[in-house]
Formats: sequence, C-alpha cells, structure tokens
Amino acid sequence: MVSRTQRGRRPGAPDTRAAILGAARTRFAGHGFGGTTIRAVAGDAGVDAALVHHYFGSKADLFMAALQLPVDPREVIAPVVAGGPDGAAERFLTVFLGVWDDPELQPTLVAFVRGVMDPSASRLLSEGFLPVVLQPVGEALGIERPELRMPLVASQVIGLILLRYVLRVEPLASMPSERLVATYAPTIQRYLTGPLP
Amino acid sequence: MVSRTQRGRRPGAPDTRAAILGAARTRFAGHGFGGTTIRAVAGDAGVDAALVHHYFGSKADLFMAALQLPVDPREVIAPVVAGGPDGAAERFLTVFLGVWDDPELQPTLVAFVRGVMDPSASRLLSEGFLPVVLQPVGEALGIERPELRMPLVASQVIGLILLRYVLRVEPLASMPSERLVATYAPTIQRYLTGPLP
Repeated sequence: MVSRTQRGRRPGAPDTRAAILGAARTRFAGHGFGGTTIRAVAGDAGVDAALVHHYFGSKADLFMAALQLPVDPREVIAPVVAGGPDGAAERFLTVFLGVWDDPELQPTLVAFVRGVMDPSASRLLSEGFLPVVLQPVGEALGIERPELRMPLVASQVIGLILLRYVLRVEPLASMPSERLVATYAPTIQRYLTGPLP
Repeated sequence: MVSRTQRGRRPGAPDTRAAILGAARTRFAGHGFGGTTIRAVAGDAGVDAALVHHYFGSKADLFMAALQLPVDPREVIAPVVAGGPDGAAERFLTVFLGVWDDPELQPTLVAFVRGVMDPSASRLLSEGFLPVVLQPVGEALGIERPELRMPLVASQVIGLILLRYVLRVEPLASMPSERLVATYAPTIQRYLTGPLP
C-alpha cells in the first residue's frame, strides 16, 4: 500500500490554500519551474510570500502540491534510489506499476497525464516534473549523465503509461505487471547505466 | 523528401468527400476500426456505399484518409519492411525521424498526436492506427508474436515523439536524429526480434 500525499504540512484556511494552489499551477504551467518564484505566486494569490512557505514549504514542495497527484513520486521513488544503480530499473518498474495498478489511484493519475498533454499545461511536465522529480533521482542514483539518461527513461515510461492506462492498448493493458517489469527492465536499465552513443 | 499522401484516389465533389471523411472520423473514433463499416459511414454521410468505395477505396484506405495525416505511414514504412527484420529498427527510426523532422510535416503530426490523446478520439489510435498500420508491419516483417512486439515498439516510439516533438524536452528535442537512431535502435530491435519473457 502506498502512502497518500500529505497536501501541505500544516492546516490552513481552505480558501487561501486553494487560491495559492491555483496561482501556483497557473504560474508553473505558464513559466515553468525555473521561471516561477514563491513571491510571484504569493502576489497572484494576494497573500504574503511567508504564508506560502508556511503552508507549502519549498518551491519544489509547492510544485508537487500544485500538481495534485494522489501520491508524491519523490516518496515512491525513495526506496528505488536507496538501492543504488544495480537493478534500479527492475525496482523502479515494480514500484511504479504498483502505484499505477492501484485502482484507487489510477483515475487521478490518468487525468493528470491527460492534463499535461494539453498545450497550456505542457510545461508542468517538461519544465517542472522532469527537472524537479526525475533529475534528482538520476543524481541520487549516482549515474553518469543523468541529464541525458533520465529523459530516455521518461520516454519509455510515458509511452508505456499511455498505451497501458490511457489508451488501453492490448496486450499491454491486461498484462500482469511482473511480465511488464521483465519486458521493460532491460530497456530502462540500459538507459540508466548501459553504454550509449 | 517524403511523398505526400494522395487524399483519395479520384477527384470528387468536395462537399461529398468532406461529409464522408467527417462521418468516417466520427465512426472510427466512436466504434474503433473493427466496429465501423463502409455502409454505416455511407449512411451517416447520406451517400451510397459504392460512392465511398469509389472515392476512398478499402476501409483501411478510408481510415487513413480520415486520419488526415500529411503522409501515409504505410508508404513511409514500406522500404523498412522490404529490408526484412535484420536492422529493421535502425531503418525504421531513420525514416520515421526523417518524416517527423520535416518542418513542413511536423505541425500537422503534432496536432494529430494531441488529437488522439483526447478521450473522444483515443480509439483512433488504439483500435485503428495500431491494428491497421502497425500490426501489418509486424506481419510483413515476419517477426514472431507481432501482436505483442508491435505494441512494445509503439510504447517506445510514442514516448519519444511526445518528449521530442510535443513537449520538447531537452536534450531529446535538439539531439541530431543520427544520435537518436543509435540510442533507440537497440531498444526497438530487441522489441522486434530479441528474446522476451
């Protein structure tokens, strides 16, 4: 069982929290992660920057809260990273498919993927999710050239998600996750640690 | 240079052709390729089934016309198939990236991908494009278990398209196509002809 994301670390007035999250999502979608400041989000929401920090923590934490994912991918991936690069692909696919196969989480995750395909939100993925979540995973694993290798991993994982969960293409949609892990692990492991041109 | 699709094989009244294509697209999106008949499309468009055949040829030809792609993928892939399974991944990636990197074709292709991500159109890909285009490629190549292997190929190729062309994630977006071919060919070739669990 995967723990749900704790949405923010302290309780706060629901309207203020919602206003901050809405402003954050718009900023991150329009300006990317790097082009967004806590100060700008606070200004858009009509609150003090200190309150944004108080409710949501760091900019990365605010970003994750704004994505409104049903799980925090950084928590899910932590044990994968802790095991080091050997066998990381198999551990990653096992944990990752476990989350996606959870019927309680899947509808929200599918909606999230559909959402970031929209042109207005695409920077949430390309200039947010990848640098905030994926890049640190590569660095923590200690692999070479994570700035190249993690997007390669993403290109295979996103394609698998689309066919299995969003478009429901057979036989991928109905395949037991153990077989998917065995099928895709060599690809992901090569992208993580194998020789590349 | 890639030849453009010949839209239908004979000239016809533009309004009638457009009505047939609109009806076909709606049918294929709602019922999939298998659940759509030429007769039903003709009925929706208020014309005789013979006229649909006359303008567009077979159901597969009508489907390709309804997708309104700037190139016919069956034509693009023909020389890849003709070379047989050895080295097919490298030939496929070279031809495929050549089409996608063509600045005249790319905007229409990106719009197509965005379109099939929409829930109302997703059956165009899962129950149309994959069985009509991809499955015959696997069969023509003479590979084992094409019904499993071609979706694996699709899962990597779609992910690459999304990151490079739709979401424009670096370094994939700016990478020379030759390097992408060398990076992804081992993955695609394993899916086509390698050992699988």
